[in-house]
Amino acid sequence: MSDLTPLFRPKSVALIGASSDTKKYGYWTAKSLIDNRFDGDLYLISKTSADDILGHKPYASIVDVPGPVDLAIVGVAPKYILPVLQECVDKGVKVVIVVATGFGETGAEGKELEEKMLAVARQSGMRVMGPNCMGLFSAPASLNASIIDLAKGHMGLVLQSGNFGIDININAKSRGLGYSGWATIGNQIDLRFADFVEYLGQDDATRIVLMYMEGLRVSSVDDGRRFLEKARRTVLEKPVAAIKIGRSAAGIRAAVSHTGSLAGSEQIFDAALNQAGVIRVNSPNELLDVGEVFSRCKIPRGNRIAILTDGGGHGVIATDTAEQFGLDAFVLSEATQEKLRAILKPHCPIKNPVDLAGTPEGDMWVFDRCAEVLLADPEVDGLLIVGLYGGYCDLSEEFRQLEMDVAKSLVQRAAASDKPVIMHSIYQSQRPESLVYISQHGFPVYGAIDSAVRAMGALVGFTERQERIRDELAATPPILPADRHDPVKRIFDKVRSERRVNLVETEARDVLRAYGFDLPAHALAKSADEAAARFAELGAAKAVMKIVSPDILHKTDAGGVILNVDSAAKAREAYDQLIANALRYDPDADIFGVMLTPMLAGGVECIIGSSHDVTFGPTVMFGLGGIFVEVLKDVSFRVAPINAPEAGRMVSEIKGFPLLTGVRGKKGVNIPALVEAVSKLSHMVAELTDVAEVDLNPVFATEQGIDIVDARIVLHPSRKKD
Amino acid sequence: MSDLTPLFRPKSVALIGASSDTKKYGYWTAKSLIDNRFDGDLYLISKTSADDILGHKPYASIVDVPGPVDLAIVGVAPKYILPVLQECVDKGVKVVIVVATGFGETGAEGKELEEKMLAVARQSGMRVMGPNCMGLFSAPASLNASIIDLAKGHMGLVLQSGNFGIDININAKSRGLGYSGWATIGNQIDLRFADFVEYLGQDDATRIVLMYMEGLRVSSVDDGRRFLEKARRTVLEKPVAAIKIGRSAAGIRAAVSHTGSLAGSEQIFDAALNQAGVIRVNSPNELLDVGEVFSRCKIPRGNRIAILTDGGGHGVIATDTAEQFGLDAFVLSEATQEKLRAILKPHCPIKNPVDLAGTPEGDMWVFDRCAEVLLADPEVDGLLIVGLYGGYCDLSEEFRQLEMDVAKSLVQRAAASDKPVIMHSIYQSQRPESLVYISQHGFPVYGAIDSAVRAMGALVGFTERQERIRDELAATPPILPADRHDPVKRIFDKVRSERRVNLVETEARDVLRAYGFDLPAHALAKSADEAAARFAELGAAKAVMKIVSPDILHKTDAGGVILNVDSAAKAREAYDQLIANALRYDPDADIFGVMLTPMLAGGVECIIGSSHDVTFGPTVMFGLGGIFVEVLKDVSFRVAPINAPEAGRMVSEIKGFPLLTGVRGKKGVNIPALVEAVSKLSHMVAELTDVAEVDLNPVFATEQGIDIVDARIVLHPSRKKD
Repeated sequence: MSDLTPLFRPKSVALIGASSDTKKYGYWTAKSLIDNRFDGDLYLISKTSADDILGHKPYASIVDVPGPVDLAIVGVAPKYILPVLQECVDKGVKVVIVVATGFGETGAEGKELEEKMLAVARQSGMRVMGPNCMGLFSAPASLNASIIDLAKGHMGLVLQSGNFGIDININAKSRGLGYSGWATIGNQIDLRFADFVEYLGQDDATRIVLMYMEGLRVSSVDDGRRFLEKARRTVLEKPVAAIKIGRSAAGIRAAVSHTGSLAGSEQIFDAALNQAGVIRVNSPNELLDVGEVFSRCKIPRGNRIAILTDGGGHGVIATDTAEQFGLDAFVLSEATQEKLRAILKPHCPIKNPVDLAGTPEGDMWVFDRCAEVLLADPEVDGLLIVGLYGGYCDLSEEFRQLEMDVAKSLVQRAAASDKPVIMHSIYQSQRPESLVYISQHGFPVYGAIDSAVRAMGALVGFTERQERIRDELAATPPILPADRHDPVKRIFDKVRSERRVNLVETEARDVLRAYGFDLPAHALAKSADEAAARFAELGAAKAVMKIVSPDILHKTDAGGVILNVDSAAKAREAYDQLIANALRYDPDADIFGVMLTPMLAGGVECIIGSSHDVTFGPTVMFGLGGIFVEVLKDVSFRVAPINAPEAGRMVSEIKGFPLLTGVRGKKGVNIPALVEAVSKLSHMVAELTDVAEVDLNPVFATEQGIDIVDARIVLHPSRKKD
Repeated sequence: MSDLTPLFRPKSVALIGASSDTKKYGYWTAKSLIDNRFDGDLYLISKTSADDILGHKPYASIVDVPGPVDLAIVGVAPKYILPVLQECVDKGVKVVIVVATGFGETGAEGKELEEKMLAVARQSGMRVMGPNCMGLFSAPASLNASIIDLAKGHMGLVLQSGNFGIDININAKSRGLGYSGWATIGNQIDLRFADFVEYLGQDDATRIVLMYMEGLRVSSVDDGRRFLEKARRTVLEKPVAAIKIGRSAAGIRAAVSHTGSLAGSEQIFDAALNQAGVIRVNSPNELLDVGEVFSRCKIPRGNRIAILTDGGGHGVIATDTAEQFGLDAFVLSEATQEKLRAILKPHCPIKNPVDLAGTPEGDMWVFDRCAEVLLADPEVDGLLIVGLYGGYCDLSEEFRQLEMDVAKSLVQRAAASDKPVIMHSIYQSQRPESLVYISQHGFPVYGAIDSAVRAMGALVGFTERQERIRDELAATPPILPADRHDPVKRIFDKVRSERRVNLVETEARDVLRAYGFDLPAHALAKSADEAAARFAELGAAKAVMKIVSPDILHKTDAGGVILNVDSAAKAREAYDQLIANALRYDPDADIFGVMLTPMLAGGVECIIGSSHDVTFGPTVMFGLGGIFVEVLKDVSFRVAPINAPEAGRMVSEIKGFPLLTGVRGKKGVNIPALVEAVSKLSHMVAELTDVAEVDLNPVFATEQGIDIVDARIVLHPSRKKD
């Protein structure tokens, strides 16, 4: 549990390293704090200057400050940091922001210093934000502990880069948008994304949480998993959107040299953000598009939108784009078309898009009257107005006045409706007064159609994201056998005692059985005679025989698999053959014997697996086997564990899904059985922290259920805590 | 051959429908023409007013004008259009622009009027632009026959929507960009996209041709094919970029109601533009991003770019994005790193991106010195500068001056280099003087990183597009047998005489053989005895037998295929069985007999086909067969005909391509044989205008070559001209 109240709503703040030199951060930060009229006690600390700084008398040390200090902003060089932090601890400071640079981002020495800083802070439980950050802004406290001019508003923005803070802020200012909270969190040695997401998620002033991420900077997968959990819980309250950079291989190189972030696997990161319901955007501008729409719009009930346009082409582009962003520009009802027909001229298309087609030049109020009709239509979930509004003012003074009057009416209509209204105008970059009025008092106006449509799509998608998470949280996890622990422990102990990490297939099958997977019986034979006897006991018409050796991982390559063994005599022969092949492949191989299993009939080849992600820990993967996974990389991922709803989405989101539901006249397979296996495996790997990788490949999916044909389990090199 | 010289460089212009009423188009257009100081004789024509209009004495009719008139701009209501056009013809006008609305876009009556207009124009060969358009601008003639304020520059912009003309122009003005030529072409009853692309392609003032398309409005596929050919020839000279709207089903509905354009199949349109080398963009802003970069940049030799940044995060995003747009942000050579190390501080990353990391605050000239080093590196093909340049001026007057001085030096360096330089700045939207200077005297500055990187990608991609087209044009078409025409004509005549459009398989195979496809022998048996005899003659161990009937298209469904027939006796049985099945399936079926072919061994299942596109005519398709085509829709298209280079790209661009080169230890197939078949089929369908559809499905691709297992050919309902 992290409580950032002393950070975002401190009663008293000290700036350590304040300065009267107008070229220094210590001056600019002091000026920001004073100009923004921080709503509490402010103390400036300067070791070097006893003169007034911006009318404030500085103290030589924080310990000299008369009252208590909740928050200290520390802008001193690295060589002074440890004694300064010690003074903060002594003073009883609750949280410090270290804005100086020259720490972990510069190399090993800096990382050591960070460890020492943490050790100092831990004495009193003082929390640390940064170092290498650009400060914090909090609207409720009127606190601007940054050097950037930030306005109050409804976005909570958490950044790993100060420069992007500047970048986004330029754009935000021009849109008239501001922040409830704003934090550049630097090297995250203590306070991390998870803490900020949690705080802003609970903060009443924040309508949306935005993140600029270069990586999570986890010290263990617990950090990664904690972030996901906090993000997911937050999405139940309000939207969370993120830009995560470092996608390409070259990008990762740049990211590492920039912040020292350890970039996790990009595909897993993407899956994890999506699983947590976080909206992933691709550019700073898009991040703000989303920030704006959730700052200013209501959440629609569904995805059916009406498009009102005064330029045919803009209507077409909006309609095109709508489909791409999951919106339905449906054909309006006859009743609504009737009402529109009464307002518009006969040549105006009214099916949706509704095209004013030149009528506003005669009567500007058609915008307002059509908007009224469309917002009143119970089938319409949201209204998009696209085209030339904002440019009529150039025609004449009369039009200028009319455009303002209509704008005011549109704003009132939007306020009175429970549906979102979003506008696009080709004149937005010119900031005509009508559009400035609309965006400041009513709803967002975008200069690009795709921004407007994508923003509407984000509103609609948010409800779906929330539903997904609610479904998943409400679902019952798969029931795992109560007596699973002992048999698995015995197997793992044996593997560890033999200094192995690879389970042989018989062991892997026993682990899976302990977790309730239904595998056909197997038998291990240690001689040709035994193989013959086991074949008879197996009671199957045909058997598969495989070499069992921890030294032979790729059994097929070693000639270690023989199919279609159909008599005891052939089982005897096969045994000798397999042993001979194995010894030819690796004369030193430690051979446990030969495994016999019943030959399975086949089905749709699938793969269910798990790997360990450096950021998020155990994950689960699903795909179609064979060429689908090898050629098309048609697989889906989640961070484990997941329940049936999320596992179901994993199965259905692969491109080859129709193969499972049935194509070319074939019947579909038992999808619930696949979903259950995926979910069960995810719970297994989440519980068995020793497991690094699992590969059930192939799994035959059939009409009846699933058959696991081959199983591999690999442990971490050293034992992890359970 | 279209020559638009009288349109873009007329010696004399008449405006018919000029007005002194300041609320009318006739006034605004007259004002544009006069204010832009048209470089020739200008005549205003007004039926209603004899008073001076803007200081010009109007004529009552164009026939009253003393000198000759090259171009007439006609802004009269539809009811007056025919006599006015007749007067233009009588006067010897070479081309008219009909700017009025109320024609084909309003319905059947308007379309009829358009036909009559064409008939009038054809008397003298007078060309018509429009109707329902917003006029034309030509920089070399200082001609602005629109009501929009357009500046001179290097972009040739052709639009189907006047509103988008306004939209894009707002953006262009703010970037300081202008046009060599600008045309809104409306309903395209005579002059079409093809004509404008061709003219602007040959126009020296035009560096790039940009199009806003809603559809091609073809009167026959000849128009579509002519457009493609003109576009492709133009790309050999200069870049062509297009935004084409109407992608989604709902979008098509809107497009139809807007302009009456007949939207062709979106997938084919996309393939066709790509085949012609046209850069397809997704938004008006992106169109201008491309317009700007080709207006202001040199074409790079390759895709290796250096990234110079003063903000780590911006460097990371640029690097990420570079890969996405086909650029290589490679690791700089040791020699270059050495030179950068001498300029920068030890903590600055210099591998690429080169990160100034705070040094400009101490010395602004590091930008310039690093740019010098990077542009001099022979491995670097282009330079991207991203981050905060343009914002230093806010720090102090000294910085403002420094930023301008460095900007001037950067502009000189870019001018002296044969490599493109592109800048991104987070301050671009604020238009600081240094950035205004750079973009007006040197190179483009974008406000979004992805715009900057995509623009660099477009420059690099242009060379590749040209090379593709040159390769394709230089390639030898496949050699088709000289004696192919007669046998095909006999088959088609027979099919037509029987009032069929479906060829039976034996006929389809004979057509393919006439075109040089190597198919195994087939035999047609009309009795069980004959089937037995034909089996013996076939000389194959096993045969496939199929029912041959023009009434049974889906042979498998009708029980019309028997595989693995391995003796004369079995052939006899199979014959009877096939006939019985066929009659059970359709008692009235006209049965030609039973076809025998050798049973083929199998291979990778492919599909090669052709369909007829409403805009572009015959097309060719390639894909992997079975589930790949059915589930994954993994296919590629081209407009036919194509030669081996383009056919090779078709084969290699499908996602399942690795299946053809060999996966999972399997050897690859004979890809040149596949490529030849695709190219040959494309030439066949381009030549045989009677053919509507061809389906070679499956085709087995093997190590040795290809085997066509099943062939279907369908003709157009009525015979087309050959």
